Amino acid sequence: MQPTGNLDQHIVLAHGGGGQLTSELLNATILPVLDNPVLNKLGDSAVLDLAGHRLAFTTDSYVVQPIEFPGGDIGRLAVCGTSNDLAMAGAEPLALSLALILEEGLEIATLQRIMASIAAAGAEANVRVVTGDTKVIERGRGDGLYITTAGVGRVLPEASLGYDRLEEGDLILINGPIAEHGLTVLSRRKNLEFASRLRSDVAPLAALANHLVRELKDSVKLMRDPTRSGLAGVVSEIAAASGKSVLIEEDEVPLTAEARAAAEVLGLDPLTIANEGKFIAVVAPAAAQAALTLLKSHPLGCQAAIIGRITPETPPLAELITSIGGRRVIQMPYGEQLPRIC
Amino acid sequence: MQPTGNLDQHIVLAHGGGGQLTSELLNATILPVLDNPVLNKLGDSAVLDLAGHRLAFTTDSYVVQPIEFPGGDIGRLAVCGTSNDLAMAGAEPLALSLALILEEGLEIATLQRIMASIAAAGAEANVRVVTGDTKVIERGRGDGLYITTAGVGRVLPEASLGYDRLEEGDLILINGPIAEHGLTVLSRRKNLEFASRLRSDVAPLAALANHLVRELKDSVKLMRDPTRSGLAGVVSEIAAASGKSVLIEEDEVPLTAEARAAAEVLGLDPLTIANEGKFIAVVAPAAAQAALTLLKSHPLGCQAAIIGRITPETPPLAELITSIGGRRVIQMPYGEQLPRIC
Repeated sequence: MQPTGNLDQHIVLAHGGGGQLTSELLNATILPVLDNPVLNKLGDSAVLDLAGHRLAFTTDSYVVQPIEFPGGDIGRLAVCGTSNDLAMAGAEPLALSLALILEEGLEIATLQRIMASIAAAGAEANVRVVTGDTKVIERGRGDGLYITTAGVGRVLPEASLGYDRLEEGDLILINGPIAEHGLTVLSRRKNLEFASRLRSDVAPLAALANHLVRELKDSVKLMRDPTRSGLAGVVSEIAAASGKSVLIEEDEVPLTAEARAAAEVLGLDPLTIANEGKFIAVVAPAAAQAALTLLKSHPLGCQAAIIGRITPETPPLAELITSIGGRRVIQMPYGEQLPRIC
Repeated sequence: MQPTGNLDQHIVLAHGGGGQLTSELLNATILPVLDNPVLNKLGDSAVLDLAGHRLAFTTDSYVVQPIEFPGGDIGRLAVCGTSNDLAMAGAEPLALSLALILEEGLEIATLQRIMASIAAAGAEANVRVVTGDTKVIERGRGDGLYITTAGVGRVLPEASLGYDRLEEGDLILINGPIAEHGLTVLSRRKNLEFASRLRSDVAPLAALANHLVRELKDSVKLMRDPTRSGLAGVVSEIAAASGKSVLIEEDEVPLTAEARAAAEVLGLDPLTIANEGKFIAVVAPAAAQAALTLLKSHPLGCQAAIIGRITPETPPLAELITSIGGRRVIQMPYGEQLPRIC
């Protein structure tokens, strides 16, 4: 990519939004340099072969601000986010690493609360932190605490997931209501009092996602967690990567009244807002009811729903049938609206 | 640990120095909360069992300032540091993850140079970046670029490494001169002109360390890379963890004239200064000459030396026989002298 002006020559916040501008940065500056077939797949996790076993490997940095918010904190987010990325690759999490970048002046009591939260989330997710690192930067060179977790997991033998497995008629399920994490963090940052009942959905999904794969095996064709760029980001990525069209029915997408109200006040489309305890599964039509029943039987899936399907339209697009029966394209968000949401 | 005053209640730079205060933070605030047998070993890498195979797993954050320095940059450091930690566990690096925390306003050209350096170091270390993440923080909340890498590796079947294997008479080897990385970064930060010939030793050690293990098998009893707290940190850790005493002969420790001069001007003990391309190996006496020959035959080991041995003294201590024949205890550095060296 040739720089076209001054703005293009420096990092801007939108480069970190997980949307179109993040993609552009990756495609122009990072992927061509590191070019290799595993990285280029850009899944939630890389999958490596280790002596005939499939090993999932993933990482994420967490820079959420504020570091503590209703329903969670940066520590819970780091454990859930990374173990969820393993789960989306069909893997059972084996172990996490934990790298802390602490800002000089951070209260030890705050660090203690975050560490306790990491331990509790690890117990809930059934995964341990086995290795780590601690660095300290001068006051004013950080923001309290940044966390980077990496995770390794064993891909379940039953798992057969991939964009290339999607077929016309496959159904798309989600395990519950969207947009709660992003709206909670943003409401807290903007001190929106009306949103005081909103809580982040941050939760470990591996037990539920693993159960789905173990029971329904290769009828589960793809799993993705709609984090930074929301459900819009994930479904537009699916269309682009699979070459198949995706149709989502707005009325079927679970959304609480609180989240709907907060999104309206903030002028945001709930489809573009981050989730940290949600995943979508694309399943063969014959298995869809069984998948829905299985999801609904778990506390993290009791509001699960079938929200869309793979369609034969060309060229491949993600589209939404709106509540009033209209039809619009779901675009990859550009990226600027919600910096430091995770 | 009960806080004993205001200083104890906040993070200070020395908490990140890799020395005694880092240990105290880990022991008081992090390890008891995350308590598990793999983490508690505190090796350079964790070693996990995956269906009968030993998998090494490690992580480090890199916050070095300046991000580019003679002999390397933060990208080369991140690739070498993490793959070296795998090598110290007796593992062949399989794959790295790369998580970037970019500060708004970072020049894309800088990022491009760092990415090219990461790719070059990966090729040199024979390890690929297979998964990653990119976050952006607001201007003034970071310092250009922080990198966190994690790595997975396959522990060589020949590797039998551990503090419990050390015996009286085992010899300690190092692959070359110490203190170059830390002195280079510090000299650059302080604009010390006389030190212009100093260059960081940052280099990928896996090929050499793997070769040593493959050839000498269980005669190689322990490997450690003396990074943040230098050779002093590593030998004092060995004494504490193994319950055996370590004796280092100052005259045998390789040190260039430039590094010696820079350390004297800065008032620093070279033993406490960070290295990023050095490792020590503790080997059975019968294999020591073979180990030395093997190290010397490799470009990264041509100045290798036998620098000390395991001794029967009690209680277990690390000690130095100085150039003038004196004897002093080598202490774990406290931690404050060189913040943001890696």
